[in-house]
Amino acid sequence: MTAPIRVTIWNEYRHERHSEVVAKVYPEGIHGTLANALGKEEGYSVRTATLDEPEHGLTQEVLDNTDVLIWWGHMAHGEVRDEIVDRVQKRVLAGMGLVALHSAHYSKIFRRLLGTECDLKWREADDHERLWVIAHGHPITEGIGDYIELEHEEMYGEPFGIPEPETLVFVSWFSGGEVFRSGCCYTRGQGRIFYFRPGHETIPTYHNPEIQRVISNSVRWAAPTAAVKKSLVIGNTQPLEK
Amino acid sequence: MTAPIRVTIWNEYRHERHSEVVAKVYPEGIHGTLANALGKEEGYSVRTATLDEPEHGLTQEVLDNTDVLIWWGHMAHGEVRDEIVDRVQKRVLAGMGLVALHSAHYSKIFRRLLGTECDLKWREADDHERLWVIAHGHPITEGIGDYIELEHEEMYGEPFGIPEPETLVFVSWFSGGEVFRSGCCYTRGQGRIFYFRPGHETIPTYHNPEIQRVISNSVRWAAPTAAVKKSLVIGNTQPLEK
Amino acid sequence: MTAPIRVTIWNEYRHERHSEVVAKVYPEGIHGTLANALGKEEGYSVRTATLDEPEHGLTQEVLDNTDVLIWWGHMAHGEVRDEIVDRVQKRVLAGMGLVALHSAHYSKIFRRLLGTECDLKWREADDHERLWVIAHGHPITEGIGDYIELEHEEMYGEPFGIPEPETLVFVSWFSGGEVFRSGCCYTRGQGRIFYFRPGHETIPTYHNPEIQRVISNSVRWAAPTAAVKKSLVIGNTQPLEK
Amino acid sequence: MTAPIRVTIWNEYRHERHSEVVAKVYPEGIHGTLANALGKEEGYSVRTATLDEPEHGLTQEVLDNTDVLIWWGHMAHGEVRDEIVDRVQKRVLAGMGLVALHSAHYSKIFRRLLGTECDLKWREADDHERLWVIAHGHPITEGIGDYIELEHEEMYGEPFGIPEPETLVFVSWFSGGEVFRSGCCYTRGQGRIFYFRPGHETIPTYHNPEIQRVISNSVRWAAPTAAVKKSLVIGNTQPLEK
Repeated sequence: MTAPIRVTIWNEYRHERHSEVVAKVYPEGIHGTLANALGKEEGYSVRTATLDEPEHGLTQEVLDNTDVLIWWGHMAHGEVRDEIVDRVQKRVLAGMGLVALHSAHYSKIFRRLLGTECDLKWREADDHERLWVIAHGHPITEGIGDYIELEHEEMYGEPFGIPEPETLVFVSWFSGGEVFRSGCCYTRGQGRIFYFRPGHETIPTYHNPEIQRVISNSVRWAAPTAAVKKSLVIGNTQPLEK
Repeated sequence: MTAPIRVTIWNEYRHERHSEVVAKVYPEGIHGTLANALGKEEGYSVRTATLDEPEHGLTQEVLDNTDVLIWWGHMAHGEVRDEIVDRVQKRVLAGMGLVALHSAHYSKIFRRLLGTECDLKWREADDHERLWVIAHGHPITEGIGDYIELEHEEMYGEPFGIPEPETLVFVSWFSGGEVFRSGCCYTRGQGRIFYFRPGHETIPTYHNPEIQRVISNSVRWAAPTAAVKKSLVIGNTQPLEK
Repeated sequence: MTAPIRVTIWNEYRHERHSEVVAKVYPEGIHGTLANALGKEEGYSVRTATLDEPEHGLTQEVLDNTDVLIWWGHMAHGEVRDEIVDRVQKRVLAGMGLVALHSAHYSKIFRRLLGTECDLKWREADDHERLWVIAHGHPITEGIGDYIELEHEEMYGEPFGIPEPETLVFVSWFSGGEVFRSGCCYTRGQGRIFYFRPGHETIPTYHNPEIQRVISNSVRWAAPTAAVKKSLVIGNTQPLEK
Repeated sequence: MTAPIRVTIWNEYRHERHSEVVAKVYPEGIHGTLANALGKEEGYSVRTATLDEPEHGLTQEVLDNTDVLIWWGHMAHGEVRDEIVDRVQKRVLAGMGLVALHSAHYSKIFRRLLGTECDLKWREADDHERLWVIAHGHPITEGIGDYIELEHEEMYGEPFGIPEPETLVFVSWFSGGEVFRSGCCYTRGQGRIFYFRPGHETIPTYHNPEIQRVISNSVRWAAPTAAVKKSLVIGNTQPLEK
């Protein structure tokens, strides 16, 4: 297993180009910040893709060479073309990992894979967030203590319209009085999905080393193992017994 | 809870009209057979709907007055219009139960709600099927003993491309050597979903009293409880703490 | 289903007899308060049992005639005799429901059924608690809005050393900065288990109508259905095929 | 992660010493056969332990230096001392993996960790078994195709009295007409548990390379990750907020 994990970081990349506030926080784009963070570690081969590239940067060739896809989107979910969503869904079912960040809860691909609306409460204010580790011992929590503290973040609150997570890794506490299931694991087909809540575009959350650590851990967790099969035996079959 | 459960039985209703073999087994259509079966019991108000009716018989008004939707489809999944699938999905998330029968594993609505392809093995031959109860004590198994025996059925075999069921109620044994997760429970939003495997169109499975019993049980299980809320508090919200 | 649900409310009943503070809050004991609350509703037949009765009030005859057992214990978990714990476990596996309240997280019977230590953080102070509904539509949430507010409660915080709940119904927010999985559903054998967090002995939580409502709902949810079988076919068996 | 996984293979080791039939199949004991199999692969440091050694070979020192414990027992479950079961349980909750083989379904440690009786059907005859992979892509299935074929095995049949597995990896088909959940994953505390069905003492199942492969895979899967914490922050705690 010495081959690097091939990560594609997909970002809508609109806020950063249209808002000075956001551009100051993420001058290279959210994808750029995350690429730098993962790039510092060994064992990753990182590329990025954005909405306004041809095929949103997610050609079949790119996806075929992606082990884990990270997704950040917010204001333009509706502009993601359905055939690209189909393509990404197929790759996840075939074993590619997906890490959906923050407002990606409303992305077409996340809702497609979960089967629900993925609604929630939200508030842009000066909330303080504390992400409590629920699943101690889970690989996504490696290097994280009892909780992660974020001085300022957008609030997301329950009810979060998702199916029951297979593993609930984090639950957030917000100073405004809400809670949220902030780290959620799913399996779909041969692929693994991790939803991770923090990361509003106006706040430097993705510069936080602990948040970077969780994202890095989740990429390793979501990467396809050697057990993933190129194809499964399905369809019309002959009996094995007389 | 004396109000009857309002059941809508949806059937593609093509095989019965195009094949004499099927018409002999289900002269009133699969929906007719199931409607008669449920109609004999107290506590149900049953109607039917079919693919070739306007809006596939699933107008907003019909769905708004449906507690549990039973779905049978096979040869014409692709003809079900996407806006009707959207409508059904919304109703399930809002609390309507869905019982997906046999080849409905490949229906648009079932795949939409599960997020996967729902592939499987199959064989039309003279297989013998035995459905073992896995979840004894579960309401869907009321009145069913250790297993249900079906002398002839189409074979469905693993791998079945579904997310891990929340409760696995039945597993089938087939004489040809295969196994299958034949009874699977899910929750999506406020709605409950039950997949039940048996029921090939050329075989009188839906005349079998034990199969009818399971379907009847699953309708009761999937019916929305008094806990279902008309709307949830989501979206932009004010803090509860200062 | 017109037969009433037979509820046995078990209480350690030591704090109320040894502390004036507690006795003022629960002059009839916690079990008495809960019995009064359930007794006001239709459909329950309620009795109580306490630690210092012979066999802790849980004779085989009592358990055989109990559909749902509610459990409150705190300072004397170790005094509960193992053979009584064995007896209760057997009844749960055979279909009796169990509702474990507050400090019952550390009771022998709860740990026995879950297989873990059920550790947690705690603090007796002046914390404010807000229990958010996570599983809207679940029968245990009937009549409960977006959340339940408790002005004063003991704090319980994550990590809570339990297996992943089958359904997570409530998550608590505490003013001191913690979160907790406050409503957790499990199935063990044919029996259903609900853990519900609130209810420190010095605080009038069990007089709160919403808390009473959740407990009442959970009793209905945990009650054995008509599907529960007196015995299962296990052990040495003959083949069904040649 | 170059440190080897420290595996302790525990075997009751009675059948092999008391029955010539079994001794011929496993002349070095079941533990010896498994130790040889794992020993051929890189990355494991293997030791064995048996019932009749002092402390059943499971001293605190041995357990403290065990990453994954494999368990085979059958005729003498009752002789395993409760304080050793306590010790093993604590280590699993603290992160040690446990692989329970075949008749270990009835071992004290397995039942302790699951909370149920773990009953099942069985038959010693000339059954043929086929283990179907349910969870393709799961690390435990690496190197395994659509199914594993075992010409002769003891039959185990449903109902299997276990909590719903977190991941169902294998389901067995038996020629006598039964099915069984043969590969089941659980998490308890920080530890991972895998139950794997095959391996009757009179049959050379543990010499089968595919069965050895599954056991080897499951050891890797169950091994504690670097995320496992030596201790968790529990007990009485100060508030984080004013």
